[in-house]
Amino acid sequence: MISQRIDLLRKYLKKNGIYAIIVPSNDPHFGEYIQDYYKCREWISGFDGSAGTVVITLDEAVLWTDSRYFIQAENQLKGSEFILKKIKVPGNETIEEWLLSRYANDYKIGIDSALFSFNDYNSLKESLSPYKVELIDDPFVEIWDDRPKKISKKISIYDIKYAGEDTTSKHKRLISLINTEGEFAYIVTSCEESAWLCNIRGADVDYNPLPMVFSIVEKDKISLFCNLDSVTDSDKSTLESMNIYLFEYDLFKQALADIPAHYLRIASGDKISAGNYFELTKDGSKFSFDKSRGGYITNLKAVKNGIECDGFRRSHILDGVAWVKYLKFIEDSTSSGKIIKETELAHKLIEFRKESEYYIDESFEPIVAFGANGAMPHYSPSERFSVIIKDGILLTDMGAHYIFGTTDTTRTLCIGEPTDEQRNDYTAVLRGMINLSMAQFPKGTRGSSLDFLARGEICSNEKIYMHGTGHGVGHYLPVHEGPQSIRMEENPVVLVPGMVQSNEPAVYVQGKYGIRIENLILCKEHIVNEYGTFYNFETLTFVPIDTQLIDKSLLEEKHKRWLNDYHKNVYLHLSPYLNFEEQEWLMAKTAAID
Amino acid sequence: MISQRIDLLRKYLKKNGIYAIIVPSNDPHFGEYIQDYYKCREWISGFDGSAGTVVITLDEAVLWTDSRYFIQAENQLKGSEFILKKIKVPGNETIEEWLLSRYANDYKIGIDSALFSFNDYNSLKESLSPYKVELIDDPFVEIWDDRPKKISKKISIYDIKYAGEDTTSKHKRLISLINTEGEFAYIVTSCEESAWLCNIRGADVDYNPLPMVFSIVEKDKISLFCNLDSVTDSDKSTLESMNIYLFEYDLFKQALADIPAHYLRIASGDKISAGNYFELTKDGSKFSFDKSRGGYITNLKAVKNGIECDGFRRSHILDGVAWVKYLKFIEDSTSSGKIIKETELAHKLIEFRKESEYYIDESFEPIVAFGANGAMPHYSPSERFSVIIKDGILLTDMGAHYIFGTTDTTRTLCIGEPTDEQRNDYTAVLRGMINLSMAQFPKGTRGSSLDFLARGEICSNEKIYMHGTGHGVGHYLPVHEGPQSIRMEENPVVLVPGMVQSNEPAVYVQGKYGIRIENLILCKEHIVNEYGTFYNFETLTFVPIDTQLIDKSLLEEKHKRWLNDYHKNVYLHLSPYLNFEEQEWLMAKTAAID
Repeated sequence: MISQRIDLLRKYLKKNGIYAIIVPSNDPHFGEYIQDYYKCREWISGFDGSAGTVVITLDEAVLWTDSRYFIQAENQLKGSEFILKKIKVPGNETIEEWLLSRYANDYKIGIDSALFSFNDYNSLKESLSPYKVELIDDPFVEIWDDRPKKISKKISIYDIKYAGEDTTSKHKRLISLINTEGEFAYIVTSCEESAWLCNIRGADVDYNPLPMVFSIVEKDKISLFCNLDSVTDSDKSTLESMNIYLFEYDLFKQALADIPAHYLRIASGDKISAGNYFELTKDGSKFSFDKSRGGYITNLKAVKNGIECDGFRRSHILDGVAWVKYLKFIEDSTSSGKIIKETELAHKLIEFRKESEYYIDESFEPIVAFGANGAMPHYSPSERFSVIIKDGILLTDMGAHYIFGTTDTTRTLCIGEPTDEQRNDYTAVLRGMINLSMAQFPKGTRGSSLDFLARGEICSNEKIYMHGTGHGVGHYLPVHEGPQSIRMEENPVVLVPGMVQSNEPAVYVQGKYGIRIENLILCKEHIVNEYGTFYNFETLTFVPIDTQLIDKSLLEEKHKRWLNDYHKNVYLHLSPYLNFEEQEWLMAKTAAID
Repeated sequence: MISQRIDLLRKYLKKNGIYAIIVPSNDPHFGEYIQDYYKCREWISGFDGSAGTVVITLDEAVLWTDSRYFIQAENQLKGSEFILKKIKVPGNETIEEWLLSRYANDYKIGIDSALFSFNDYNSLKESLSPYKVELIDDPFVEIWDDRPKKISKKISIYDIKYAGEDTTSKHKRLISLINTEGEFAYIVTSCEESAWLCNIRGADVDYNPLPMVFSIVEKDKISLFCNLDSVTDSDKSTLESMNIYLFEYDLFKQALADIPAHYLRIASGDKISAGNYFELTKDGSKFSFDKSRGGYITNLKAVKNGIECDGFRRSHILDGVAWVKYLKFIEDSTSSGKIIKETELAHKLIEFRKESEYYIDESFEPIVAFGANGAMPHYSPSERFSVIIKDGILLTDMGAHYIFGTTDTTRTLCIGEPTDEQRNDYTAVLRGMINLSMAQFPKGTRGSSLDFLARGEICSNEKIYMHGTGHGVGHYLPVHEGPQSIRMEENPVVLVPGMVQSNEPAVYVQGKYGIRIENLILCKEHIVNEYGTFYNFETLTFVPIDTQLIDKSLLEEKHKRWLNDYHKNVYLHLSPYLNFEEQEWLMAKTAAID
């Protein structure tokens, strides 16, 4: 089957005089999750991991993927002509190296003009020279027969009582960032940016409450390109009252071409597709890049207003209640000798979450990882491979969307008796998480300055984790957002009050276990004095932290104080929503340690 | 007198059709200290602070300086036509703003082509446009009648038993960094780079053991431009045996012009003067920038070899012995009611240092600052203004060059009874200093990732210090060196074993006191395991840390453990060199705290 598909694609290449095509994993909006319609890389290769790039030439087929997917890819590529290239493994060329070693005179490489950003296109052109890199239309339209349909679920208006700011005000603030005289058209590719700006939500992809939309922002209006059937007439009028005008999704490209000549076109080079960029600028029209890191709207969106912060707080109470039931369920099950599986647990937490009328959906693919599975930071249990839980370390990383906010929480617990190494690692992770939670820092501090407060504790155990300590979190929007981060790597964006991020140091012991503790933290103004302005963090998450795994001799007084205060708060906030038995359980779990 | 000097300079400007001249504070080598010969800014303005820039136009005279020098500058400019512009104070234009507001058609600005780097010249040209920025020769040659002579003290060969690596080997490693086929000429402007590469030392400026030299590095030889009379014939032969050939200092510019056409010229844009850059490239010769941060030699020099590290260790033992005598002297004096002054103390520590035959000189201008003076991070006592020491906080920051290494140590102590605020601040500074001393971090870590380990403790007290936590330290070379640093600001240079830097968190309470504790720390490899390679620091400094100022309730066990271990080591390393009375004193000062 795969070989027939490859044949079809090769016919397309030959017909168009192309030597090779690069098939990426994204859609035209460059978001984290994509619809089945866009899963061309999966269709052509049979590999269904979330990350990977395929190159098909006239006589070879190769998949590049990262270490998370080596085993899965090997299995799924078996029997096909596909060769697997392991990213960052010595002896495995990069896409560019591999392609360059095959160059012959006048060879062309095709890339879908909608699936590569302008900046990516430019850097490919440079790194693949002397190849000619040609922007092509989606070839799978021709060759993929039973291609799934695009999905357009209902687009709903996000209530101002949750959003806290109306589009008119957001629009005004965006205009002042754009800061240009005269008429302009600011191009928005990212669905989450349009959703935030227009106060709309959808359900067109998994886990992200987003409609598939583009928008064009002008001084006095916003044109929103979407499936018109997904919006009720009454909502259309409401949107128009905010100067948001709706057009069919497919008219977007034409609309770019139709922008009046004297308008200044503005877009982020990382976000606008190469195809749209050239559409926009083809008659030598005035163009200017949005050079802010992540783009203007992402920068506005990252700073939550008071209503959004309150929504986060409410969401975390609801979520905490579900977590308490979940953690109690695990304890009850394992202590009674009941056999449970990873997948079953994931369903269980979702079930408890669903008890709240405000629950919408999970905010990412659930991670319930037992024992050695926990050592894979992005492990997701599937019905086929779910592991039975017995004695050992269990890591759960799950998040939810509630109508007024988003959560993302990791808790690690031990079934049976932990080893000294496990206690030691767990306590280091906890120290790191608490250090960052307690940080006070001057205005102007970047996340990279704070990363080592958490990471350093794990390094003190001569271990490391290879991911960041914190990512930005959207407000009933994608759980991973920019522009700020708390990582080793330099990121020039400074933390400001209103930014929400995760705080998730970890330890992974290959083949044995993974430990991660994750709360969400909100940056706030702490104090202004003669030295300047200081910020700190409010912890949003209310879920008990397993104290059985702690080696108390490794905690300082300040850590114990923080943990005891935290647990007091967890009990205070959650107990009103629990029955007596649950309250008793939570009381025990949140008892102060000494 | 100043007005006559200004008149002379204005005559020069008129004669040359120049509207304004910018007079900076540096010499042609861009080092930290300059000879009197180059103090033109001081001569023309009367202001003798270390930092400041003068602009003289046909009808105005202005000095820009920073907050350290506001009072001094006001005093020294009094009675002259000079206006003072306070850098970073609202209402004070920058040099560029001030000049631009005076632009008239065809106005030219002159800058000495030897005193501005190529990069500085370029950015001035851009920021001062539409002015024409003209590179001129030193105008003070004509107008400064009794100008001091240039000083050329003896240049001596630095013994391989201290340097640990001969020039042949350094030259080879430099060539491999330059990494170019064919012939090249690498231009070295910085005296410390030439001194390191050629294993020579001098004494042509204060505090830096440097001769004033340029060099040109080729594949098979190094041309060193210096005062030939400063080198003995026997040393000349020794240098020639290392393929270092000596030429008169003044022939350097001509030598740049004489480089064969087919040679690739290489220099750092921050280090080569604009004049030399244009000399080097005037016939369209091949040129390439050294784009490494700080330059190739600075990068090689920053990583100390084993002999250099041992030299640092020895220096710190000798220095520790002098510090013990110094600290005991303070205690004896103050407890017996003797009146002592800041300047007297500085002399006293130098006197104790001189007891070692290996002592050469101070490594920077001594800082002995009592009470409110300590709140000025760069305060230096002078005979005129030295303060008498009574009850209060005393900060001493002094460093020395020994023949085999360099020191830089700060200790803070309290005479009389400290306040709670002082104890609290002192303990925060100590915690920060210890946190950084104990850090373990993965290979690839930048100094900016570690800065907050120290700074964060002071922020927890809602205070900050405005300087970096650590600077690189030269090996019997300038005490401040790059390319690494431990600061809030991003610096892409990663820390590697062999780098020596300071560890000096601080608190400054305006009008009251300053607290700083400073050790030097050496980056070392700690462990290699399945997670990778980890580094840590060895503390080089051996000077007791005042425990009277500590609020022990604010120290964790790990801090106490570190401090007690440290003090045990201080006693162990220093006591063999002390008399019985000093040993007893040190034993008490280094007693373990609980």
